[in-house]
Amino acid sequence: MSSTAGQVIRCRAAVAWEAGKPLVIEEVEVAPPQAMEVRVKILFTSLCHTDVYFWEAKGQTPLFPRIFGHEAGGVVESVGESVTELKPGDHVLPVFTGECGDCRHCKSEESNMCDLLRINTDRGEMLNDGKTRFSINGKPIYHFVGTSTFSEYTVVHVGCLAKINPSAPLDKVCVLSCGISTGLGATLNVAKPTKGSTVAIFGLGAVGLAAAEGARIAGASRIIGVDLNSSRFEQAKKFGCTEFVNPKDHDKPVQEVLAEMTNGGVDRSVECTGSINAMISAFECVHDGWGVAVLVGVPNKDDAFKTHPVNLLNERTLKGTFFGNYKPRSDLPSVVEKYMNKELELEKFITHEVPFSEINKAFDYMLRGESLRCIIHMEE
Amino acid sequence: MSSTAGQVIRCRAAVAWEAGKPLVIEEVEVAPPQAMEVRVKILFTSLCHTDVYFWEAKGQTPLFPRIFGHEAGGVVESVGESVTELKPGDHVLPVFTGECGDCRHCKSEESNMCDLLRINTDRGEMLNDGKTRFSINGKPIYHFVGTSTFSEYTVVHVGCLAKINPSAPLDKVCVLSCGISTGLGATLNVAKPTKGSTVAIFGLGAVGLAAAEGARIAGASRIIGVDLNSSRFEQAKKFGCTEFVNPKDHDKPVQEVLAEMTNGGVDRSVECTGSINAMISAFECVHDGWGVAVLVGVPNKDDAFKTHPVNLLNERTLKGTFFGNYKPRSDLPSVVEKYMNKELELEKFITHEVPFSEINKAFDYMLRGESLRCIIHMEE
Ligand SMILES: NC(=O)c1ccc[n+]([C@@H]2O[C@H](COP(=O)([O-])OP(=O)(O)OC[C@H]3O[C@@H](n4cnc5c(N)ncnc54)[C@H](O)[C@@H]3O)[C@@H](O)[C@H]2O)c1
Ligand SMILES: NC(=O)c1ccc[n+]([C@@H]2O[C@H](COP(=O)([O-])OP(=O)(O)OC[C@H]3O[C@@H](n4cnc5c(N)ncnc54)[C@H](O)[C@@H]3O)[C@@H](O)[C@H]2O)c1
Ligand SMILES: [Zn+2]
Ligand SMILES: [Zn+2]
Ligand SMILES: [Zn+2]
Ligand SMILES: [Zn+2]
Repeated sequence: MSSTAGQVIRCRAAVAWEAGKPLVIEEVEVAPPQAMEVRVKILFTSLCHTDVYFWEAKGQTPLFPRIFGHEAGGVVESVGESVTELKPGDHVLPVFTGECGDCRHCKSEESNMCDLLRINTDRGEMLNDGKTRFSINGKPIYHFVGTSTFSEYTVVHVGCLAKINPSAPLDKVCVLSCGISTGLGATLNVAKPTKGSTVAIFGLGAVGLAAAEGARIAGASRIIGVDLNSSRFEQAKKFGCTEFVNPKDHDKPVQEVLAEMTNGGVDRSVECTGSINAMISAFECVHDGWGVAVLVGVPNKDDAFKTHPVNLLNERTLKGTFFGNYKPRSDLPSVVEKYMNKELELEKFITHEVPFSEINKAFDYMLRGESLRCIIHMEE
Repeated sequence: MSSTAGQVIRCRAAVAWEAGKPLVIEEVEVAPPQAMEVRVKILFTSLCHTDVYFWEAKGQTPLFPRIFGHEAGGVVESVGESVTELKPGDHVLPVFTGECGDCRHCKSEESNMCDLLRINTDRGEMLNDGKTRFSINGKPIYHFVGTSTFSEYTVVHVGCLAKINPSAPLDKVCVLSCGISTGLGATLNVAKPTKGSTVAIFGLGAVGLAAAEGARIAGASRIIGVDLNSSRFEQAKKFGCTEFVNPKDHDKPVQEVLAEMTNGGVDRSVECTGSINAMISAFECVHDGWGVAVLVGVPNKDDAFKTHPVNLLNERTLKGTFFGNYKPRSDLPSVVEKYMNKELELEKFITHEVPFSEINKAFDYMLRGESLRCIIHMEE
């Protein structure tokens, strides 16, 4: 038992007071974990577009003050009532979506969309009592996707914590909490390219590069990177991309360009852009008979996916995935092992590192499109 | 060797001289099979909507005079050069789409869309020499989808003939040449419902009823039949349907009705209507996390499949199938065995029987929506 168990912890957190305004490092109170909750000491966290998106709060109802952050690695400080799976000292990755273990999704081999703990970006409180565990002078500070890792200590539902190998370096594997696992799993768990196959990756941000890394691990012989921004191509070579197409360089739809390059279409495609045009192209560029397209990007509210149904009847498959179809608790430990046995390379995703006090720099790097992942060190 | 081998055979065939006009039983000359071709004595044939569709020739370039027919059972009379897989006396089912065995599709485990022998409704001649094997007084009569089974003898590419168990009754298994296998395979090979699951079938014509039969064989516990025509419901009970929904009876979209009936969506759906609305509903009615929708119906040229991409991201799968993903030569023999060992029931599809001389009655039954399958007996 740590000496802080059962006590309120005062620690530093980066609080977003207003939409789009720099985070402010504040001293916050973190209440002890309640039933089924765990308090975690965060050691490393990284920044993902989703944090920036909800911080900018352009499309959604804003919820402030709030503590963002959902990619991280930490150590269990104390556990609440009924928590039997974790104990103080365990190494964990918090995840924005959970696994209760009991619902129909958790019991299905195919789904990871837990009914109880599925991502909820609107909710700012904990499930147990509908209240926050963060406060400043008694004033509640909202949570973000149940993780709020931009804090030295945070409280997370036990179902949103993956217990991992304690010898795994948390400053590397912390990036597996979200985007990298999303892209990797989209390829390995959903597209499932066979050895020697041809894979197209739409969008070469962190998620798309992780999807390319998955194709490389699966032994694809051609990995074609597609992006509207050609400056992404050089870096993508490190992730296994062997060829590149910028749709802007062609007069015809990119699906036709890809069909010509591949004698009728690619075997698998993975869309990691969020653009509806890329989603349609990613589907239409797969080969008839056996092609599988996987959608990862988060579309706009009003987007419509539109295609001629004959494209489906010609035995193409269209799938979408959420968090790469990984069940956070059951599956992430083995992704960490993939890194430990050098199958999966994570270092190349980490382009920047900053101390916690300079967390706003991580936002700048991302907004300028310079970083893939910036690791934020909580202990300076 | 039959005594007719190498000779022109004179026999009866039902010739369509003009679009939409009753077929006329004529004496035709059937030339001997050329390289990779087989001449088959047809014993039983049945009528499918596709024959009627091209006979009416409302949507396509008409090709007449033509001999229709593509569901049949027969016996090999003689074989052309280089045919080693079949010999006179073998029992065969002709199929409108073939399996060359050599192309990328035939070599892929996933596809049955052979590059060489894929269905071609525009072609009226044989591949080998671009000529017809049928003539009347030297005037060519066109073939239909490489089968033209409305003739006592026909010539078929060896890749379009499935060699089956000679003890299988051809007057029953002839219906496996097209629609029944299409629906059955859509469920068994593509949707793959697990035991105890819930399956929705859109469209309760012969194809949809075969899809329901597949769900029954797979052990689905709820099979929900959806059709705009409630008169189809009584018959569908014989095919395993346990519940029925007529979209016309509801104010809300049928996908919502199904979601309410099934606590969030069905596990699998199979669309067998050809209606784009049914295709969209069939997709949107499957459960998130694990639902799979399979499209079978042939859409109109200008139809667009349209859905919000979030329906995909929520881990639904959308697939289309052609001939139930069966490879005609490799897979049909085992479907015949399913009938032989009483797993698959074919008798209930056969609602009518007529002698060849009354073949136009089979068209009437189908046009009036009275028949599922009408077996035409070539020997009277
Ligand atoms: N980042 C995550 O953790 C995460 C998790 C789940 C899902 N997603 C979704 O995955 C998508 C990608 O995330 P990211 O962090 O890699 O984003 P990113 O912005 O870093 O990368 C997206 C890339 O797609 C390219 N692009 C945009 N439109 C395109 C088009 N029409 N054709 C080709 N390329 C196009 C852009 O130029 C950019 O390089 C987003 O929609 C995101 O919401 C992300
Ligand atoms: N018949 C074949 O051999 C074959 C082979 C491959 C594909 N197909 C295709 O499969 C489809 C079905 O073939 P079939 O022979 O069973 O046709 P069918 O006309 O006998 O049956 C179709 C059924 O769908 C119903 N329907 C139409 N629109 C609907 C809607 N919006 N919602 C619910 N029900 C609706 C009709 O009332 C009808 O009962 C067709 O598109 C056909 O082209 C057929
Ligand atoms: Zn759950
Ligand atoms: Zn993220
Ligand atoms: Zn082939
Ligand atoms: Zn047919």
